[in-house]
Amino acid sequence: MITSHIVLYKQHGEPKDVLETHSYQIDETKIGNDQVIVKTLASPINPSDINQIQGVYPSKPKPTTEFGTTEPALVCGNEGLFEVIHTGAGVKDFQVGDWVIPALVNLGTWRTHALEDSSKFIKLRNPEQSKAAGKPQGLTYNQGATISVNPLTAYLMLTHYVKLTPGKDWFIQNGGNSAVGQYASQIGKLLGINSISVVRDRDNLQELVAELEAKGATHVITEEQNSSREYSSTIKDWVKETGGEIKLAFNCVGGKNSTGVARKLANNGLMLTYGGMSFQPVILPTSLHIFKNITSAGFWVTALLANNQELKQETLAKIVDWYEQGKLVDASSTEVKFDGEKKLSELYLSGITGKGKHLVTY
Amino acid sequence: MITSHIVLYKQHGEPKDVLETHSYQIDETKIGNDQVIVKTLASPINPSDINQIQGVYPSKPKPTTEFGTTEPALVCGNEGLFEVIHTGAGVKDFQVGDWVIPALVNLGTWRTHALEDSSKFIKLRNPEQSKAAGKPQGLTYNQGATISVNPLTAYLMLTHYVKLTPGKDWFIQNGGNSAVGQYASQIGKLLGINSISVVRDRDNLQELVAELEAKGATHVITEEQNSSREYSSTIKDWVKETGGEIKLAFNCVGGKNSTGVARKLANNGLMLTYGGMSFQPVILPTSLHIFKNITSAGFWVTALLANNQELKQETLAKIVDWYEQGKLVDASSTEVKFDGEKKLSELYLSGITGKGKHLVTY
Repeated sequence: MITSHIVLYKQHGEPKDVLETHSYQIDETKIGNDQVIVKTLASPINPSDINQIQGVYPSKPKPTTEFGTTEPALVCGNEGLFEVIHTGAGVKDFQVGDWVIPALVNLGTWRTHALEDSSKFIKLRNPEQSKAAGKPQGLTYNQGATISVNPLTAYLMLTHYVKLTPGKDWFIQNGGNSAVGQYASQIGKLLGINSISVVRDRDNLQELVAELEAKGATHVITEEQNSSREYSSTIKDWVKETGGEIKLAFNCVGGKNSTGVARKLANNGLMLTYGGMSFQPVILPTSLHIFKNITSAGFWVTALLANNQELKQETLAKIVDWYEQGKLVDASSTEVKFDGEKKLSELYLSGITGKGKHLVTY
Repeated sequence: MITSHIVLYKQHGEPKDVLETHSYQIDETKIGNDQVIVKTLASPINPSDINQIQGVYPSKPKPTTEFGTTEPALVCGNEGLFEVIHTGAGVKDFQVGDWVIPALVNLGTWRTHALEDSSKFIKLRNPEQSKAAGKPQGLTYNQGATISVNPLTAYLMLTHYVKLTPGKDWFIQNGGNSAVGQYASQIGKLLGINSISVVRDRDNLQELVAELEAKGATHVITEEQNSSREYSSTIKDWVKETGGEIKLAFNCVGGKNSTGVARKLANNGLMLTYGGMSFQPVILPTSLHIFKNITSAGFWVTALLANNQELKQETLAKIVDWYEQGKLVDASSTEVKFDGEKKLSELYLSGITGKGKHLVTY
């Protein structure tokens, strides 16, 4: 028997008010033919996990009593890295020791163990397997546990919509210092695509610019420069030098920041909105739509990949390869380890209220 | 020799300050092999014609000295209906008496006659030809002279982007009482597509609602209802009854009016912006982009058809057929006739400053 701890909630609300740790037994001798038992290696706290608990996120887990709660409960967490520790007799795709991540969202990743159908997981090479495959390095817990949302968002926004010519074309993004923003600059550079990253002005701006440029951003500008019409000519000069166009814009801020990046697009350009950090709507001058044929669309990795496991697998393979070759740097997390001293829900709560991104390791 | 009068300007500015009437001679004995001489039957004044003169419209005629002005001058007018009065020896597609319209914009339609390459025109059936073809009626001057912009805009927005299922699906539009809005409701009805037209509240609202419903709008609502979230459930009930979805929205207003129509779209819906009467930008809540996958794009008939004469011909044929069958009602114009008493530029100026849409007939 394995004692599993899982973070659940029975009604939506602020995490501190509604999260509970529930413990239940998994009987490994009763594993189904197509099932696997996994132990959790790490799971992150994403903003969408919190919004899900608050009840303000459109994708929701189904209430369930499968963990033995008297009332139906909802599981927390969507991303995570697991190790297979038992396999049912009919499982062919996984072996004990394999690393896996959830195939879909709403699996409930804030828990120590899971007994699930094997189809709910996708295999990632573990460090031993990477070594055996001749790769320079294996994935870290942080890389594996956070691979499904931010790197996939950056890669798919860059590759799934608009054909960009390496060495020539450009994308522009606000939120250039966000996790997705940093992945986008890095992946852009790996693909040969030039980028302009817009960031908030700050005291140590030059330090941040240097850091983002080192990570692959071709140019880093401030929100004030992004909003100023005058700065457009500087940007035009940069683009002219490469003989390409700014064909793509990524917006995770909204308001005049979205207008600013949309204005930089060439005719027929596309702006993808994947976040709204300012809580302001996307604002687009009519003339950009009519006379420059700018299109504004949304990007949600969950929806795009929900019915396209093949695309997910392909994209994951690309990211894994870059990690193994040391070409891609993951967004760092503050790691907190579950050692049984604090209840699991308390550990996640401390991560929710703490500064920066947190990863709970096991 | 034919004495032609043409309205020109030598620098951008307000029409009253810059428009001139220029007269010049066309020698019909010197007509080129592929040329035609046409006399103008009618040409309208569109808002874009005025913006072009002001210099604030992206599509501009090229300055020319071909009419014998000492300084290069720009021609006015983009839509018009002409009758062929002479054809060059090599012209096969047109005969004397044919009705033609410009194939492209910037022909300069505010003039009495034109000598141009025949490729610059598209033939429309004249009333005799309609009769000979067994059609119930022929086109009027107003229908022919205003066919290229508003009816084509309405038809192409309805048919070129999204597959709508007749009898089931819907579109919603603001500016429901505009010329394009009225064509869209009518054409929607002819195609079996349900519509919701948003109009400004007014004293005689019920009268307007009755008029627009008679012209094919399934429902007419006010801007206040469009902006109210509460009204959404009424609209959902209408749509539920037909078993379809609101897949398409047309925006020619901007600001919260654009937000209002975008909010009514079903998941994966498209909003096309073809105007900005409020001078407010398009405003789209981030969540509509990300979680409902709403796309916002622009529509400009000039750009769409610039390199697609086949699509233009097909679309014109459809509109002509509806006019000939009396199934489509044109947007009415105040007609003013050029009889030589006033200078031609003064006639257009009176139309520009007059209330409502004007058509100059010859």
